[in-house]
Amino acid sequence: MLAPHHDGSPLHVSDPAPALGDTVRVRLRVPAAFGCLEWVGTRSNPNREPHFSRATLLGEADGWVWWEAPVEVENPVHHYRWLLVGTDGRQHWLSQLGLSQIEPRDDDDFRLVAHDPAPAWAASSVMYQVFPDRFARSTRADERELPEWAIPAGWNDPVDPLPPGRSHQVYGGDLDGVRERLDHLVDLGVDLLYLTPVFAGRSNHRYDAANFDAVDDLLGGDRALVRLVEAAHARGIRVIGDLTSNHSGHAHDWFRAASADPAAPERDFYFFHEPGLERGHGYESWLGVPSLPKFNWRSLELRRRFIEGPDSVVARYLQAPFHLDGWRIDVANMTGRLGGEDLNAEVRQTIRRTMLDVNPDTILLGESTNDAAGDFQGDAWHGAMTYTPFTRPVWSWLQEPGSPAGGGIGFALGRVPSYSGPEFHAAHTRFTAGFPWRTRLATMNALDTHDTPRFATNARPGAAEVAFGLAVSLPGIPVIWAGDEFGLTGVDGEASRTPMPWDSEADAAVAPVLDAYRLLVALRRSHPVLATGGIRWLAVADDAVAFVRESASERVLVFAARAATTVSFDAAALPDADVATRVYGGGRLAASDAVVSLSTDGAAFVAWRLPGVDAPVW
Amino acid sequence: MLAPHHDGSPLHVSDPAPALGDTVRVRLRVPAAFGCLEWVGTRSNPNREPHFSRATLLGEADGWVWWEAPVEVENPVHHYRWLLVGTDGRQHWLSQLGLSQIEPRDDDDFRLVAHDPAPAWAASSVMYQVFPDRFARSTRADERELPEWAIPAGWNDPVDPLPPGRSHQVYGGDLDGVRERLDHLVDLGVDLLYLTPVFAGRSNHRYDAANFDAVDDLLGGDRALVRLVEAAHARGIRVIGDLTSNHSGHAHDWFRAASADPAAPERDFYFFHEPGLERGHGYESWLGVPSLPKFNWRSLELRRRFIEGPDSVVARYLQAPFHLDGWRIDVANMTGRLGGEDLNAEVRQTIRRTMLDVNPDTILLGESTNDAAGDFQGDAWHGAMTYTPFTRPVWSWLQEPGSPAGGGIGFALGRVPSYSGPEFHAAHTRFTAGFPWRTRLATMNALDTHDTPRFATNARPGAAEVAFGLAVSLPGIPVIWAGDEFGLTGVDGEASRTPMPWDSEADAAVAPVLDAYRLLVALRRSHPVLATGGIRWLAVADDAVAFVRESASERVLVFAARAATTVSFDAAALPDADVATRVYGGGRLAASDAVVSLSTDGAAFVAWRLPGVDAPVW
Repeated sequence: MLAPHHDGSPLHVSDPAPALGDTVRVRLRVPAAFGCLEWVGTRSNPNREPHFSRATLLGEADGWVWWEAPVEVENPVHHYRWLLVGTDGRQHWLSQLGLSQIEPRDDDDFRLVAHDPAPAWAASSVMYQVFPDRFARSTRADERELPEWAIPAGWNDPVDPLPPGRSHQVYGGDLDGVRERLDHLVDLGVDLLYLTPVFAGRSNHRYDAANFDAVDDLLGGDRALVRLVEAAHARGIRVIGDLTSNHSGHAHDWFRAASADPAAPERDFYFFHEPGLERGHGYESWLGVPSLPKFNWRSLELRRRFIEGPDSVVARYLQAPFHLDGWRIDVANMTGRLGGEDLNAEVRQTIRRTMLDVNPDTILLGESTNDAAGDFQGDAWHGAMTYTPFTRPVWSWLQEPGSPAGGGIGFALGRVPSYSGPEFHAAHTRFTAGFPWRTRLATMNALDTHDTPRFATNARPGAAEVAFGLAVSLPGIPVIWAGDEFGLTGVDGEASRTPMPWDSEADAAVAPVLDAYRLLVALRRSHPVLATGGIRWLAVADDAVAFVRESASERVLVFAARAATTVSFDAAALPDADVATRVYGGGRLAASDAVVSLSTDGAAFVAWRLPGVDAPVW
Repeated sequence: MLAPHHDGSPLHVSDPAPALGDTVRVRLRVPAAFGCLEWVGTRSNPNREPHFSRATLLGEADGWVWWEAPVEVENPVHHYRWLLVGTDGRQHWLSQLGLSQIEPRDDDDFRLVAHDPAPAWAASSVMYQVFPDRFARSTRADERELPEWAIPAGWNDPVDPLPPGRSHQVYGGDLDGVRERLDHLVDLGVDLLYLTPVFAGRSNHRYDAANFDAVDDLLGGDRALVRLVEAAHARGIRVIGDLTSNHSGHAHDWFRAASADPAAPERDFYFFHEPGLERGHGYESWLGVPSLPKFNWRSLELRRRFIEGPDSVVARYLQAPFHLDGWRIDVANMTGRLGGEDLNAEVRQTIRRTMLDVNPDTILLGESTNDAAGDFQGDAWHGAMTYTPFTRPVWSWLQEPGSPAGGGIGFALGRVPSYSGPEFHAAHTRFTAGFPWRTRLATMNALDTHDTPRFATNARPGAAEVAFGLAVSLPGIPVIWAGDEFGLTGVDGEASRTPMPWDSEADAAVAPVLDAYRLLVALRRSHPVLATGGIRWLAVADDAVAFVRESASERVLVFAARAATTVSFDAAALPDADVATRVYGGGRLAASDAVVSLSTDGAAFVAWRLPGVDAPVW
């Protein structure tokens, strides 16, 4: 895998956040052994018409020949790719899919993005996801009256996978409970708390909001959220909320008003069928579920109330007294889309504009659990909660062959297809190639979420640590779904909403899992290159992969194996491998002049530190 | 290459032109030897949320097991792919890129399109491209006074590749000249005449229109166009024109009015720089060329005059007395795009709406010579004048290695990269996978155009016939750039605008070329399956490829080789190969129970006819 290399990292791109019209310098490095080149440069595609820019030779360092080309950012999402022409006449294209002798497609181009970037802290964050009903009960929880739909559950009761318990079982976790447990987050080292919805609904998950005006009293109300955010911020932990832009609950004030009176101003917030042409329950809803009526984003009044301007819901909670640090948007993929209409871009861009106006230092993540590329080009969503580039490929490589996978994670027929290492790598590459680099850095590396089975349920022996190792070492925001650090299991997206087993911290089976999580988060945070460095793959074999994250300050070599194995690669790909210092795990590195070999006696996640890349100064 | 198969053809899709909300039945056929399947069905992506539809087993015929699934067309461009799950648990995805063990990307999905389709005649047309100044002079041409910018040229003068001759050399071909030579088109068998622009400009190519109000007097004026279209229609030949939606000439009435008076209504048809902030020549233009000022499509008045409604330019020439059968739109890719603004979709959709209103039986082709997929999803352009799926791959496979290729065709550095057969196939597949089937059928299979060198210039021995054979046998509209049938050469897009060598028809070097063109067009037109049938690849080797076009009525087996070679494939892919009847060329077919072999002693294009596919009735 010794090949010409470019990615969006600071080693290779002079300005990660250019303005329209700026000229950015981009760099390519070519292995000295690649052969003689007659021409090297970029092919941009401004206004969809190709434009070539010849690169200048910068010099050679550590066996790499560096080239630099100027690229003017002519469109907000400016595509470019590299072309290398050998003195033998061969043309080699380098796109985000890798090297190709035939022309790449536009969708695989590298991109420079002139839209406002995500906050600098986005890429360096480590996220912790909390489902408030299941995380922790404060003492105040005992005083609260449950709503009529709720089925009370004791903290150690099993999660009921079937209706009505599935959505109505209430364990009584609350925001003060989260606040009281913030030291757990500090102990883990995470610094970004993602709370699933906190607005009252008629379910334990609250994705069926009854209003967006106040935090659910069951969770402690507005004051509890303010207390939580203040306490989190005091510990250096940011907090983001969760909004449903595709639908509300049918108990939502807006939907009730709209249902009660066809003349109500809220009537056109939803898609009510014409009288006499009703189908199903008489209005459009999320996947036909009557309790989740779908929003009609043609309504300007809906936009004003919900997403547009300083008085909107989107704006309100980013400001005093709440000070949320951003939003994760539920079902972002379906938002504004129905039949012949597609207002998705308008909605997401409006949300982002509102956020930029009230607090530009906020993050906006969109849920799009399949191929997210189309909507994630940098015009609004900073990153995706998606399962195609990371989650499903990791499962397919690291789960026991033939494992079942219950609802939510998106495997067809509820079965995890088994991937070899090359298939894992190909899937990861295929689904990251569609993203601008900045989107990749802000996309969630989630092993699982509140919507999926838990990864540990059917993981290969030792693979849970390997999987989370990949989450902290591949580009993207590592995510811990609360409870994974206790080794919890769960066969589907319902069963995984397990109450936190706070008393198990010291259990023999739990302590090492917790330790691994702490150490892997620490690895990520103590090596900024894992957040923003480039990535170069070194070896891809059935049972193991190796890559290196790189910056001018440091490199981290990563070796991830699902079984005892040795992988080797050309020493020219990492000429100073002999000076590598192991900083995580227990594998072995052997370097000769010709070959570097990485070995393990079983499943392993191993990291070595090396000095920064010897690159020409900018 | 014996593999599960699906494409957009009538064998596999019950309705090629569904309405939104219709349920279309789609069919997959699986080789009996593929192994046992536990589940077969489609994965749609309505509103970007996956939905699976299980297929029903229809039965087995000729070694193929047929499956059928219902797919509801929920969006105007409705994506779907196939999933096959073996009893061994393996998951196989089938997208337009082929079979994959890992998830495909949305961009490679099959599509059902609910937008208005192209006229039925689009796919069955064979196009002939004429550059009016260079095709034929009528006797009236001698009477005309040339404009001041023109440099008169005699019909046998060489084309001047350098300015000012390049654009100003006028040979005096005219529309009556075209009309007088229509028998040549009839003789060739073509039935769609594409005229490059006929509106006056200040150049021989007329892509710098001075107005759209009248046909250039140099070409005979409006009356000559009317006479030509009438005469063509009388011979069963349709005629389309060429409009520049990206720019006009700087001599255009609109631009002159706009330049002369900043208060003119035409001022905002263009992008004049703000006073004091002028750059270059003071306005935006095509690739910085001052004579081609770029249109600003924010202007509603520009839209009204040019593309919107029955009084627009777009509408005018489709109606009496002109009756053009459609438009080819120049620089469609850049139209409406500049900096942060992208109005391309609005412009193209407006053009199409106007055409549907005045005459729905018209075709709309857009020039987009690189990766066209993004704009060609069926909302406006029926097909593309593009060089990525056909033109460049064919050149790369069939040109002499190391051939130069002058401007216009888009090869980097003016050199044709050499492809093997698998690279040709991969490039063709890569760039067709992004199109809906219907777009593919209406996309131009051009070996060359008025903008490119001529294919024959550096073709391998015998390869010109093979190349045009591919043009008539791959999905898409075959195109003859006037003069190719005389074996003309030309090193770039200027040199290829050669006056037609009418007196050379009987030359020993020309006659066989003309014959091959006649016979290949006849092959295409006598086998409708070559226009609308499915395509299944059978063999891909360095020097030859084989595929079969298929319908319920007939099949045509195609073998294209650039050198003496034999290719073989599993007989199960074509079980009745032994009954094939050769209908073009001189290769050999040998069929045993196990293997079919196709052989040739040199470059060859060969076609065999077989009976239609034994498919379950709909």
